[in-house]
Amino acid sequence: MIYNDTIVALATASGAGAVAIIRLSGKDAIKIAADNFKSVKSQKSLSDQKTHTIHLGHIIDENRVIDQVLVSVFKNPNSYTGEDVVEVSCHGSVYIQQEIIQLFLRKGCRMANPGEFTLRAFLNGKLDLSQAEAVADLIASDNEASHQIAMQQMRGGFSSEIAKLREELLNFASLIELELDFAEEDVEFADRTQFKDLVDRISFVLKRLIDSFAVGNVIKNGIPVAIVGEPNVGKSTLLNALLNEERAIVSDIAGTTRDTIEDELVINGIGFRFIDTAGIRDTKDVVENIGIKKTFEKIDQAQVVVFLFSANEFKTQSERLIVEVEKIKNKFPLKPMLIIANKVDQLSEEEKEEVSQSLNTIQHIEALMISAKNNEGVEDLKDKLIGFVNTGALNNNETIVTNTRHYDALLKAFEEIQKVKYGLETGLSGDLMAIDIRQALYHFGEITGEITSDDLLGNIFANFCIGK
Amino acid sequence: MIYNDTIVALATASGAGAVAIIRLSGKDAIKIAADNFKSVKSQKSLSDQKTHTIHLGHIIDENRVIDQVLVSVFKNPNSYTGEDVVEVSCHGSVYIQQEIIQLFLRKGCRMANPGEFTLRAFLNGKLDLSQAEAVADLIASDNEASHQIAMQQMRGGFSSEIAKLREELLNFASLIELELDFAEEDVEFADRTQFKDLVDRISFVLKRLIDSFAVGNVIKNGIPVAIVGEPNVGKSTLLNALLNEERAIVSDIAGTTRDTIEDELVINGIGFRFIDTAGIRDTKDVVENIGIKKTFEKIDQAQVVVFLFSANEFKTQSERLIVEVEKIKNKFPLKPMLIIANKVDQLSEEEKEEVSQSLNTIQHIEALMISAKNNEGVEDLKDKLIGFVNTGALNNNETIVTNTRHYDALLKAFEEIQKVKYGLETGLSGDLMAIDIRQALYHFGEITGEITSDDLLGNIFANFCIGK
Repeated sequence: MIYNDTIVALATASGAGAVAIIRLSGKDAIKIAADNFKSVKSQKSLSDQKTHTIHLGHIIDENRVIDQVLVSVFKNPNSYTGEDVVEVSCHGSVYIQQEIIQLFLRKGCRMANPGEFTLRAFLNGKLDLSQAEAVADLIASDNEASHQIAMQQMRGGFSSEIAKLREELLNFASLIELELDFAEEDVEFADRTQFKDLVDRISFVLKRLIDSFAVGNVIKNGIPVAIVGEPNVGKSTLLNALLNEERAIVSDIAGTTRDTIEDELVINGIGFRFIDTAGIRDTKDVVENIGIKKTFEKIDQAQVVVFLFSANEFKTQSERLIVEVEKIKNKFPLKPMLIIANKVDQLSEEEKEEVSQSLNTIQHIEALMISAKNNEGVEDLKDKLIGFVNTGALNNNETIVTNTRHYDALLKAFEEIQKVKYGLETGLSGDLMAIDIRQALYHFGEITGEITSDDLLGNIFANFCIGK
Repeated sequence: MIYNDTIVALATASGAGAVAIIRLSGKDAIKIAADNFKSVKSQKSLSDQKTHTIHLGHIIDENRVIDQVLVSVFKNPNSYTGEDVVEVSCHGSVYIQQEIIQLFLRKGCRMANPGEFTLRAFLNGKLDLSQAEAVADLIASDNEASHQIAMQQMRGGFSSEIAKLREELLNFASLIELELDFAEEDVEFADRTQFKDLVDRISFVLKRLIDSFAVGNVIKNGIPVAIVGEPNVGKSTLLNALLNEERAIVSDIAGTTRDTIEDELVINGIGFRFIDTAGIRDTKDVVENIGIKKTFEKIDQAQVVVFLFSANEFKTQSERLIVEVEKIKNKFPLKPMLIIANKVDQLSEEEKEEVSQSLNTIQHIEALMISAKNNEGVEDLKDKLIGFVNTGALNNNETIVTNTRHYDALLKAFEEIQKVKYGLETGLSGDLMAIDIRQALYHFGEITGEITSDDLLGNIFANFCIGK
């Protein structure tokens, strides 16, 4: 154990609930809890209780009873942090939470910093750095895909793959460095063919992980979709129609809320972020032209563009609309785009056919006819949106990189491995090659946390919530 | 055990935190949890684990790992509800909470109703009804006084007092009913002198409890204080000055927030609710006169009136201000009132003296000179406000009634006991007296829950949060 002090924090969500959990970790966690706890049944002190047991009693401040609580005892090293840990499950009033935390602060605890419990878990070897980072991702996960990736990472899928490659590479590094000691004898301990195989294997894995970041990043942060459309073409009706089903699931469980309901939604477990734009209707008006510039900026940030218009305006405005579509297509030729004719419920069958045929003349862009109001075509739209996401890796349970820090380290490791590869091909001397290998090992170590610095740890854990 | 089904709910506050707790209670709680849990260390099923133990493992839905969790097992009758209880401590993302709850719902649980865990605890005899109600009060408590009262009630202080009296009364009731069986022999099993003593004792206790409701009610709901003052006399500066100290305490603990910070504050553990009014300056303006009417309505609802004005305007406006004070005093002669001259920092020493002397001429109303901006006199103001609250009973640790339902039952019991008393004094026949005694016993029973109806229970537990 590295720390001498004992930390305390509220571990459950802030605000009032039926119960709240206050977590202590450190050298004196059990003693401090025991000194302020009176068991209902047992005469034994908490300090004499077994690990992983729960005790009913009261938290007492001098003679004042603060609350009736359940206290869970975890003895080191068998705890989340690897230290002695106590969890106090109290009645969930904010007042009671505060009183108990204040009591423990007076009795020698200090407030935990964000992520400090997990930092201690890492420093005590309970999890490696990428697993620790996955804890924060897990807590932040708000859809199936981001949850699945975080869970896989927390269970070590990612770091065990890296760690295995690192170990093999380390082996060769040692052999090559051993050769240097016997330089005069010109021996070759490291089989160059095997080594080349390994380097190829590492390159292949690194390449796959690096490529997965594109998918991982959108899955973690949601896929940005720009909706390009004038006012009154039915943007919010469309978002509501898309949301409908999900909303039903959410409302089944009381007490769950969804923020900014219009901006984010989850389709088949993948998060989408919808970015509203003002459209790009051509105009001489300076203010509106600023609007068009902004729309283009938003399209630039998006991964998918949805061009939405009112089907009942198509007859009179088809030319303008097609020009606008082409304009976007020319500016962003690689960006997936979808044209949606909304409000088809207001058209006759012949008119529908007409619009549909016109839309089909636009090359390489798919079009959909929907009525957001009547929920017509909304499922098709969902299928199309999901189609834009490459979920192959996700569905195959492959390791996906979502963390920018890991991505950077993987890129650097890949670069070094390419140097090693080149060195092998050109018969570079062992001493120079050893330097490149050490560099690659260094970047591997950054991912799993064998290599860390206070700055790095500070940055990582500052993004955690308090209490974790 | 009364119920055949197993309930599930989120027990911690809604929203994301480091951890969240999902609670199951009922016949199949342990089985359902066990079927979807894979321990990290133990091969044993949760069903074979001891009560009050904690187990690290994964919640699994078919082959999909939802989360790494700690599971606490409580076996009946040694649990909160008296049934088998399982608490799953999972990572606190809303997504994960939902997934686990949905899993348990699919596997045979149903969503708990508000307060259903506590209702089951009551029905299984783990707590009496007034203790169950105290649980909700405890969760709602937001200051020291309301917390103390709820805690006392939950620990049985209130109901044990009632239960003791009830038992004694029940004894006499039995003796008197026994006399009825031997009516022809004209015996007297119940010693009338002792009985009269008991009835007096009960009357005394009931009277005290009934009287305590006035204090209890303000403590539970906060003491309403009307601030009467024109715009710009410094109302919000004053509220901020009063809040300062408390705010510092709150901000020590990250993640705690205080809603409508300007309206409620806690002074020495007692909650005050400040009601802003528009003042009562006399005017011909119809709109303003409506304002004055509203101010009087608000004063009517308040327990304390604070009349606030700018000391630097006193010279020119003293007459009007004194007329206004007198007007309030005449309309509400019994309401405690405090005059506050704010902004005294803008006065010279002589001017201060002058204002102070003028204020002293107002009969029976205390005045204070303060500078909210410079925090001068704010402590005096707090002392005065606290002085208005009769905290005697609170400080003496006496039982205080805060619950309207208890208050009503106590009033009815008191009424019946007065009839019994009158019957004793007038030599009423035993059979008639027995009816009054039974009625009194009935109302006692309502408080502790020996007498209940589905409606009553429905009403009480509907006010609980889900998960408790």
